[in-house]
Amino acid sequence: MKPLRVGIAGLGTVGAGVVKLLAQQAELITARAGRPITVTAVSARDRNRDRGVSLDGLIWHDDPLALAWDENVDVVVELIGGSDGPAKALAEKALAAGRPLVTANKALLALHGTALAQAAEDASLPLAYEAAVAGGIPVIKVLREGLAANRVSRVAGILNGTCNYILTIMREEKRDFGDVLADAQRLGYAEADPSFDIDGVDAAHKLAILAGLAFGQKIDFSSLHVEGIRRISALDIVFAQELGYRIKLLGIAERTEAGISLRVHPAMVPVSKPIATVDGVFNAVLLEGDFSGPVFLQGRGAGEGPTASAVVADLIDIARGNQIPVWGMAQSKLAEARVVPMAHLTSAYFLRLMVVDQPGVLADVTAILRDHGISLESMLQHGRKPGEAVPIVLVTHETREDAVNAALARISMLESVLEAPALIRIEPK
Amino acid sequence: MKPLRVGIAGLGTVGAGVVKLLAQQAELITARAGRPITVTAVSARDRNRDRGVSLDGLIWHDDPLALAWDENVDVVVELIGGSDGPAKALAEKALAAGRPLVTANKALLALHGTALAQAAEDASLPLAYEAAVAGGIPVIKVLREGLAANRVSRVAGILNGTCNYILTIMREEKRDFGDVLADAQRLGYAEADPSFDIDGVDAAHKLAILAGLAFGQKIDFSSLHVEGIRRISALDIVFAQELGYRIKLLGIAERTEAGISLRVHPAMVPVSKPIATVDGVFNAVLLEGDFSGPVFLQGRGAGEGPTASAVVADLIDIARGNQIPVWGMAQSKLAEARVVPMAHLTSAYFLRLMVVDQPGVLADVTAILRDHGISLESMLQHGRKPGEAVPIVLVTHETREDAVNAALARISMLESVLEAPALIRIEPK
Repeated sequence: MKPLRVGIAGLGTVGAGVVKLLAQQAELITARAGRPITVTAVSARDRNRDRGVSLDGLIWHDDPLALAWDENVDVVVELIGGSDGPAKALAEKALAAGRPLVTANKALLALHGTALAQAAEDASLPLAYEAAVAGGIPVIKVLREGLAANRVSRVAGILNGTCNYILTIMREEKRDFGDVLADAQRLGYAEADPSFDIDGVDAAHKLAILAGLAFGQKIDFSSLHVEGIRRISALDIVFAQELGYRIKLLGIAERTEAGISLRVHPAMVPVSKPIATVDGVFNAVLLEGDFSGPVFLQGRGAGEGPTASAVVADLIDIARGNQIPVWGMAQSKLAEARVVPMAHLTSAYFLRLMVVDQPGVLADVTAILRDHGISLESMLQHGRKPGEAVPIVLVTHETREDAVNAALARISMLESVLEAPALIRIEPK
Repeated sequence: MKPLRVGIAGLGTVGAGVVKLLAQQAELITARAGRPITVTAVSARDRNRDRGVSLDGLIWHDDPLALAWDENVDVVVELIGGSDGPAKALAEKALAAGRPLVTANKALLALHGTALAQAAEDASLPLAYEAAVAGGIPVIKVLREGLAANRVSRVAGILNGTCNYILTIMREEKRDFGDVLADAQRLGYAEADPSFDIDGVDAAHKLAILAGLAFGQKIDFSSLHVEGIRRISALDIVFAQELGYRIKLLGIAERTEAGISLRVHPAMVPVSKPIATVDGVFNAVLLEGDFSGPVFLQGRGAGEGPTASAVVADLIDIARGNQIPVWGMAQSKLAEARVVPMAHLTSAYFLRLMVVDQPGVLADVTAILRDHGISLESMLQHGRKPGEAVPIVLVTHETREDAVNAALARISMLESVLEAPALIRIEPK
């Protein structure tokens, strides 16, 4: 059978993993795909770096864009990364030149997914991106095909392994954020510039993709609320445990009566929920379909093997001749997303105040909450240190976020309140 | 666009669910499938039963086989059930008449999957069966497509919701098997004749399907070791908890050096494993790919909505024109399975003896274990009742099953041992 000839742009960990997988598993993949899948051409920055895989016999392009027109390439795999620049240029050129595109690039899809999908549809070409979200977990396929008969009401996931690793170590070793981050950077679990991960941007890119698929809507990435984990304190992790929660950075997309809610933020998750027990670098996604019920998926969210597994699954689909619309339906069927502003979110809240332990503080705080119509489910204060700083934890019943923000603004101005209150949403409500 | 016209045989819970789903979600499904999917013909035993869905305008066939030749039907959905009889006849006739087949019938596929797949391949027709395993969890798609680049080393799952429900209630309410089963039957969670479920046959059918897909091998159903949950006692559940385990009925398929191991039996699962915390009627499957790493899936394993969701996902695939080989690769590529006999299994074992509490018993038992080369990891005996029956629990290190069986045969003959010892394997080793 005629092989499917692959051109790979970007030979970092994932690119080298794809080359390795296709070589090591050649016989199995030929059987599954119905024909061989072989790498014929590559492009990367440094021709001489040792990547632990043989590039003998492959065509080398210094310019990745050359892959789009290479007559020895049937499908282009974009593993350069970055939402713009050469990654975007290559994606556009490959489709323009009539070549299917496989990419692991979440930023590219989150920011330019609508335009790229239109280009793919116009050219009747596959654009596949299983590797862009949750690595070894085939969540794109599950959502786009496995749950295709369902109206999905909610997607919630641990989508960034670096954040989950840091939160797990903070809890297990009772250590502070900065300290654990520095360790994670030494160990290679966090980048030298960690902000994409720890500020929630990476998780938000993935959430935007999942939301687009789940709801059949065009998602404007700037409409997502994005918070990271920098402000999570060891103290809040201890209180979470005491209250029966785990703190996780979640990406949440849900339908509400007013529109869809799209947000990445730390959340208190009851320990009884499967997602609460997902620790370390693992990723997990919970999908709620109206007929299927909840479907929970867990696995490795990153790394050479899992990501290469996802890229090659896409290549096998293409080799088999199967094609699914990029966002699960024709572009003309996609609705414009109506995103609910964060101020209109209703949730239960964990609030922690640092206050001077003196008479009347609690009366002031609870009066303000009452003024804003916020009722409390529980209150925690441990020990007494008259005249010194002590934490007070308040757990609210379900209430609107703008009410909480207004109350916290007033509470922050109380003289006895010593620092900005901590706020962590409780999920699911 | 030309609709995909569906003929459904069998209008029980699932059949009615499919009719309902296709009607209720018509617009969404048309968008996702690229064309309408409409039921045009049905067949069931009783024409007048109220199924809660309208059958107005549908062609009614008293004989399900008529669906295979009905010119108003593009695809046949077989929901009759049973490994032989009309279900098998319809499957064969539909493929012979050039019509794709969708089925939820695990028994049919476990027993006749090779022959049916050959017929489908010869006719270049899709044969889809997402609904046959684990209901709303798209595990067939995940295994056959999502993990297609992987050599899968192990599949382990909770594949029968009835058993998992019974074991969950036994643990939570500290009640005996027979008692909980009777309740489950009253509540409709267990059949009047429950043996297919509780003796492990249903789970074994599903395991045979997963193993065939995971390993690319033709599975002879009679080569599976199948044990159910009838002999699980409330006492063993208590000991399991004390030792940090949960008892689950697992289906396990794994590669070993000597061949593949295929077995359904109760297992002690460490509480730290995700599968240990899957309770009630939920199903779960853990898949181990060499590149993907572990992928864990959890969801509703049965019921109208989840099963209909799976059937319609298959119909959408067919409407989209996508086709995957039935067992993930061409029939000629499938290997004959070499199944390791159960006697050659190596595992750690939980053993419980009921013995007369008198001096020397433990010395006799441990001498026999030593004679068979079996070493112990731990031993539990609570309280003392001189002269009366007491349980002794032994947890072995990893050892071969034939050695354990030989030792237990000798232990059973000791005068101080009062009943047949209980044996529960520990998974994963």
